[in-house]
Amino acid sequence: MEPDFTALDSYLAETDTDGYLIDADSDNSDLYYLSGFEAPDPFVALYNGDIHLFFFRSLEYGRAKKEAQADTVKRGSDYNFESLLKEYDTDEARGRVLKAFLDEHGVESIATPPRFPLETADLLRNHDIEVTADDREVITEIRATKKEEEVDHICEAQRANEAAMARAEELIDTAAVDNKGRLVHDESVLTSEQVTKEIELTLLRHGCGLDETIVACGSDAADPHDRGSGPLRAGESIIIDIFPQNKQTKYHADMTRTFCHGEPEDDTLREWYELTQTAKEAAFDAIEPGVTGEAVHAAVCDIYEQAGYPTLRSEPTTETGFIHSTGHGLGLDVHEQPSVSPKGGELHPGHVITVEPGLYDPDIGGVRIEDFVVVTEDGYENLVDYEEQFIIGE
Amino acid sequence: MEPDFTALDSYLAETDTDGYLIDADSDNSDLYYLSGFEAPDPFVALYNGDIHLFFFRSLEYGRAKKEAQADTVKRGSDYNFESLLKEYDTDEARGRVLKAFLDEHGVESIATPPRFPLETADLLRNHDIEVTADDREVITEIRATKKEEEVDHICEAQRANEAAMARAEELIDTAAVDNKGRLVHDESVLTSEQVTKEIELTLLRHGCGLDETIVACGSDAADPHDRGSGPLRAGESIIIDIFPQNKQTKYHADMTRTFCHGEPEDDTLREWYELTQTAKEAAFDAIEPGVTGEAVHAAVCDIYEQAGYPTLRSEPTTETGFIHSTGHGLGLDVHEQPSVSPKGGELHPGHVITVEPGLYDPDIGGVRIEDFVVVTEDGYENLVDYEEQFIIGE
Repeated sequence: MEPDFTALDSYLAETDTDGYLIDADSDNSDLYYLSGFEAPDPFVALYNGDIHLFFFRSLEYGRAKKEAQADTVKRGSDYNFESLLKEYDTDEARGRVLKAFLDEHGVESIATPPRFPLETADLLRNHDIEVTADDREVITEIRATKKEEEVDHICEAQRANEAAMARAEELIDTAAVDNKGRLVHDESVLTSEQVTKEIELTLLRHGCGLDETIVACGSDAADPHDRGSGPLRAGESIIIDIFPQNKQTKYHADMTRTFCHGEPEDDTLREWYELTQTAKEAAFDAIEPGVTGEAVHAAVCDIYEQAGYPTLRSEPTTETGFIHSTGHGLGLDVHEQPSVSPKGGELHPGHVITVEPGLYDPDIGGVRIEDFVVVTEDGYENLVDYEEQFIIGE
Repeated sequence: MEPDFTALDSYLAETDTDGYLIDADSDNSDLYYLSGFEAPDPFVALYNGDIHLFFFRSLEYGRAKKEAQADTVKRGSDYNFESLLKEYDTDEARGRVLKAFLDEHGVESIATPPRFPLETADLLRNHDIEVTADDREVITEIRATKKEEEVDHICEAQRANEAAMARAEELIDTAAVDNKGRLVHDESVLTSEQVTKEIELTLLRHGCGLDETIVACGSDAADPHDRGSGPLRAGESIIIDIFPQNKQTKYHADMTRTFCHGEPEDDTLREWYELTQTAKEAAFDAIEPGVTGEAVHAAVCDIYEQAGYPTLRSEPTTETGFIHSTGHGLGLDVHEQPSVSPKGGELHPGHVITVEPGLYDPDIGGVRIEDFVVVTEDGYENLVDYEEQFIIGE
């Protein structure tokens, strides 16, 4: 892929800064996007119109020269790191080497991501480099607008996600119910952990991995970040939220469905489900270029508040009702720009965002439904192909 | 687990610092170790003898109050974050809230991990908090010494690792060879990618995940960080390096074996294998409390250099021979303290370290063998139970 760094060039020009510096490992998506290089240990990337990579140690050097999207690749020995280590302590040696690397490219002032390592910043400041944390996060901002190739990667991850969701739904759908109301297969109780494992095995077979999955039943489902544990029960809501990453492309998908095996014990859940579908449609209706993420979020809050439920907008400390944002950008990170929340800025074509309204109450359970869309010139396209059916297993 | 933070107390006293502050997500092992809390989004932990957690948003607040190992848990609304956001920009509001959080605990000076976010540090400095990056990494240092419970977690991950290695070895061992020298099963060519997938499925069934696996054949194997791709071949060395993480405990294992299906095409490989076994034994012979990681590494370099192979010690820019460190600590991170390298300090009982000598040359291939041990009062205990057999499939 050939990223378009025009916005980064403008940012450096506007702020009168010589270069943009990242010091991270490639779990940092800005670094991966800039360098096209994956490495487990931290390395340094400088953008000053060209892309320059630097590795203190030689281990990744050869592979980076072959694989990275970079104009130059250097390593410690190019700046006498080993001899400096004999003369100075490690930090001072690191500082001198980084200073030499920047000097070589005529860079006296740098902008960095907000989470740039403090120690590296202080070492450079000691060598009179001007270091400013870029609170706009300009590379993250560039990443928010996806090229067609990136949308394809996200859709590929989503096909795996749909296969995994289908497997989870099948397990809940085809379960029997024991005399304690627990779902069972072949006389063994079906747990969150088992469904999670089946989801993960399915994803892996489709080339995707993930760190976490949410399969949360009953009161677990009332906490949006509870991953869930223990037996799944009939008549309670079961939230399944899967956000896999394709191992090759590193792009994510993200989808949530809520199921109930049999009739819900509490009729409120059915009402919540329908209201959440309405809220999701209200969000979709609002999405088009030029509209803000804030406005899309407000459309969801309107629906819930009109129905009498608290939101973080109406009650900032509420622990029940709609207690999170409507959505987030999706790409190399599972949560990235743009935000679909009170702080969400303007949407543009190529933005990929989730829409995931939900309602929560520990006494009742939780309901969340999540799709994601790409913003287009005249609206949006929903990239999720998975039906919504709350009550299954009947 | 009840971590022992005596060394952190001493560090704060010695440096006359009021508290230790971390701002990260729980992929940061220092934060996870300190807080016992797993969260996908960044949060803040302060140690000042007690442990205080802070979340800007409410999403994780309830779960943290229930699950975290913390004396207090606070959130943005406890310090009027929402109203400050109306008055100031996000950064200024964040800075004021963090200042109020520190004020509440009487903290005017903080130490932070070296990779603490620059933006947060600068916000606090603007509010006259003294911020110093702790280049000793004292929490990482504390983590290096494992309690028995942690060693058990690592061993549990290793049993999964051994099952995965056995599956990989079986695939190579039982393969046929086609007329192009490629390994085949049921007439389809066996690739690195397929073996990797089988390893990952096995690990997942044993409760472990991993981001990367190395199954590297021939010239791929000559680059220690090349994950490998494409067909596996008879007569070439195949390096398999697996470093899974147990999903529950978050502790890692790490083991490497090198296999060759049938007789090696280049007899050098057999010599390398035996020499690497000798180097590994030399490292083991050196390991006991009080010995430095540097000395253990030197023992390996001695063996290779005496046999006429370059090492980074004898030739700092060599790209063939022994081109990495001997090993590293293993725990919540797959690479952590202590280092078994030229910069490796003293080993102590409870340190868990890998020993992984190897030789590499793009014209020949690569060989690496890796076990890991826990340092004991009178030496070490090897925690790996997996035989070493280079030539298989005959």
